[in-house]
Amino acid sequence: MGECTDTHTHIVTYDSTLRDGEQGEGISFSLEDKLRIVERLDAFGIDVIEGGYPASNPKDIAFFQRVASMQLSHAKVAAFGSTCRKGVAAQEDTGLADLLASGAPIVTIVGKCHEEQVTRALRTTLQENVRMVRDSVSYLVSQGVEVVFDAEHFFDGYEANPAYALEVLRAASEAGASSIDLCETNGGKLPMHIYRVVSEVTQALPGQRFGIHCHNDSGCAVANTLMAVAAGATQVQGTVNGFGERVGNADLLTVIADLQLKMGKHCVDDLTQLTGVANFVAECCNVTLPARTPYTGQSAFAHKGGLHASALARYSAAYEHESPEAVGNEQRVLVSELAGKASLVTKAKSLGLDLSGQPNLVQEILDDVKAREAAGYSYEVADGSLALLIMRHLGTSKPHFTLESFRVIVDDREDEGALARDAESEATIKIHVGDARYVATGEGVGPVGALDNALRQAIGESYPEVANIELVDFKVRILDESVGTNAITRVTITTSDGTHTWGTVSVSENIIEASWNALVDSVEYGLTRMGK
Amino acid sequence: MGECTDTHTHIVTYDSTLRDGEQGEGISFSLEDKLRIVERLDAFGIDVIEGGYPASNPKDIAFFQRVASMQLSHAKVAAFGSTCRKGVAAQEDTGLADLLASGAPIVTIVGKCHEEQVTRALRTTLQENVRMVRDSVSYLVSQGVEVVFDAEHFFDGYEANPAYALEVLRAASEAGASSIDLCETNGGKLPMHIYRVVSEVTQALPGQRFGIHCHNDSGCAVANTLMAVAAGATQVQGTVNGFGERVGNADLLTVIADLQLKMGKHCVDDLTQLTGVANFVAECCNVTLPARTPYTGQSAFAHKGGLHASALARYSAAYEHESPEAVGNEQRVLVSELAGKASLVTKAKSLGLDLSGQPNLVQEILDDVKAREAAGYSYEVADGSLALLIMRHLGTSKPHFTLESFRVIVDDREDEGALARDAESEATIKIHVGDARYVATGEGVGPVGALDNALRQAIGESYPEVANIELVDFKVRILDESVGTNAITRVTITTSDGTHTWGTVSVSENIIEASWNALVDSVEYGLTRMGK
Repeated sequence: MGECTDTHTHIVTYDSTLRDGEQGEGISFSLEDKLRIVERLDAFGIDVIEGGYPASNPKDIAFFQRVASMQLSHAKVAAFGSTCRKGVAAQEDTGLADLLASGAPIVTIVGKCHEEQVTRALRTTLQENVRMVRDSVSYLVSQGVEVVFDAEHFFDGYEANPAYALEVLRAASEAGASSIDLCETNGGKLPMHIYRVVSEVTQALPGQRFGIHCHNDSGCAVANTLMAVAAGATQVQGTVNGFGERVGNADLLTVIADLQLKMGKHCVDDLTQLTGVANFVAECCNVTLPARTPYTGQSAFAHKGGLHASALARYSAAYEHESPEAVGNEQRVLVSELAGKASLVTKAKSLGLDLSGQPNLVQEILDDVKAREAAGYSYEVADGSLALLIMRHLGTSKPHFTLESFRVIVDDREDEGALARDAESEATIKIHVGDARYVATGEGVGPVGALDNALRQAIGESYPEVANIELVDFKVRILDESVGTNAITRVTITTSDGTHTWGTVSVSENIIEASWNALVDSVEYGLTRMGK
Repeated sequence: MGECTDTHTHIVTYDSTLRDGEQGEGISFSLEDKLRIVERLDAFGIDVIEGGYPASNPKDIAFFQRVASMQLSHAKVAAFGSTCRKGVAAQEDTGLADLLASGAPIVTIVGKCHEEQVTRALRTTLQENVRMVRDSVSYLVSQGVEVVFDAEHFFDGYEANPAYALEVLRAASEAGASSIDLCETNGGKLPMHIYRVVSEVTQALPGQRFGIHCHNDSGCAVANTLMAVAAGATQVQGTVNGFGERVGNADLLTVIADLQLKMGKHCVDDLTQLTGVANFVAECCNVTLPARTPYTGQSAFAHKGGLHASALARYSAAYEHESPEAVGNEQRVLVSELAGKASLVTKAKSLGLDLSGQPNLVQEILDDVKAREAAGYSYEVADGSLALLIMRHLGTSKPHFTLESFRVIVDDREDEGALARDAESEATIKIHVGDARYVATGEGVGPVGALDNALRQAIGESYPEVANIELVDFKVRILDESVGTNAITRVTITTSDGTHTWGTVSVSENIIEASWNALVDSVEYGLTRMGK
């Protein structure tokens, strides 16, 4: 079997987090989340980012409009959809028209290869299905886009009727598909099976680029993906952290690390971003990255056994398959990507703050960050709060205002209806700007809105530019789930001035207080950025 | 091993949950937990249960005493330890004496096969290491126990010096080891590598039984285990749910299901216990079984996509690799805006509510669900709220209490420090239970805690069982239909009565009101479940 490693063959990475990943239970992205993930995956060096299904919903349509104006440095965005419908010419098909209208340079269309799926799920003839595939691919190619053909249920179909499954692939290949991605849709196949079938298929259609798309239902998604590459596939589909329907897709990050570190392939230039990307996407989904995620999880290089720990002290290779630093992770349990001095200096630099040549100060900041992370803070998406923290240590922080106190009152009466709207909130804050003291009361539907309104009133006279600073997202996480409503709450706010976006974070046992502190950071950092 | 061996090769299952599993971060078992797990694994049909390290701690010594008096129907218990120490004769070694004193019918000893490990970690000669292995195995065999030899770091050792690694195995084999289990200790190997090495080793020592022990550091533990079986191994080590050091061991349950359902092997007679065993052991560890665990997780057969859901209604094989019933799990159709009538009826049934034969009512409920989902509700994880909603439509809902009004006050003063603690919350609620009216005030660090306390006070006299209902998770998500702090907030609460867990959801522009409504649903559904 193809164990031998060849050096530097590039394997195309195709990320489906925003489409297939969102099929996972409990996973949903806002439009802003999706755009931030695109930015991050692009910076990481992912080749293709599947953005969504523009024929299906307004959020995805807006996504393709917004993403078209982004300056991506490397990645191409793919729009996902189906072949034309049965009995409809490709150029008449509204679904294909929507895909083209998305403006995405790559269009991925899913089509059937399993005779039973054609007759029972699609309810058409085998010939018509081949026509749909051929016409759809060739029409899309004629319109100037790159076409990826997702061969749904391919492995089951090939098992049931290999000749027909291959006929469908041949149609897609002849029509000009740039890649044919074999989908192990139900996730039940084992590695040896995948290896054999991909070997046969790549030999049957020489010169055609093949990709692989696996699900983890038999616990083999990563292995199946690697076996497909060993058998000749050169494009790998997956999702960040393996998010996806049922038990999820192949974890693209694990696949990338395995291909690059263990199979001598090339996927990305900077593998040290791996852990950061994993945590970033998990944060966007508001889920915790499972600690036992290979390479990127908090426990991935954590050691507990006394036997192991003492051997480790002699040499790390004793119980570590790779260096944690190679994938941006750390030996033992560390809270975030900011664990080392060098990464803090790098991060500060990206925020416009120079920490070079000040090792003692860096250590002091790192200690502060670690203490706060131990208390529940997470700076992974909160660059605004991190910048303010660093500035406080640098002595360059100049708070624009200071709080004396606030009081929030929420009143509610019994209500009915899907969206209750009758609660009222009122916030009174007492604030100092320089020598002046302001008392302002804001109303709002919710308590954070009331605080926000009060804050804007109180400082609006001194800082009229606060009107340009707008909260765009507000996330809340409960950190210690075992203690119910008294658990520690982490609030993360995303704020925009129309051009830049920044995150801020605060932690408290009181959700209102955590919200207030994150809100203050968001406005403070906004004013600081504006040079006020 | 029963009738199945006539047609299917039996693969010996070796569970290491109680020893290697406990090396996992956050995993620990009490003595009682360990005994209950032994009982459960025995009933499930596991062949060998590794109980612990009797030379290392009093808990494990007590375990072997207690387990000796249990009437196990099938499983044999193994005691785990090391070979004799360097320079010590096997019969003089206190560690081996402890293993024998445990009374376990199987003794598993770990030994080194990697020359570098011998010289650097063990700090002895290659010859002395072979002597330690040979003498230890043959002494233990002479004392009447079955011996499993765990060949630590075998794959790395074989890569570095295959002749030496094989020499160690040959010593164990000649000394009478009943099984030699090849350990992929660092977890970094890939399936094709495992297949090749196990093939070579089984050919080099024909007639010897081999086992396999894998870790998941490259995301391939299950696949590596299966490949070893394909290459000739007939004993599989693993842990329930893959618990274990770093990213964990091969999940023995997934391995068993794959071997039995997909590779035609026999492991256990009743695979429908699989999901129950997974949840039982997770409960013993006080951790939640990850929803995306293959076969046994809550999401393993959950479907969300509209495309998939409609095809599933035609035939389940469309998007399921195996029948969920085969492994004691169940199909779940996630109710979401994509779902149809059939899935609502199925979902209601799983909640104990019969909607069959009432198409108009189903349509009415579906319209309500869709309207609520359009307003931001999500019933994917909120079974409790969905059940209450269906009951309201069925006319079987009997609210245990109704709200007249609440008022929440949060006070804060300026503070510093990583975790602010000085805010105070107070909630006053006015509630009716039947004809009685209760006014109660609760305090809390946060406003939701204050409301929760007030609610428990107000209804505690009428429903003392509310004390058994506990909030275990509380999630907040800001939906981006509008921006900023007046955005719509979705609160999802997970509640437990110690046995069952349910989710509730509410949506409001006011985070406090949404929290309140989700809290009310959580208590209401809890009381309803209890039949109050």
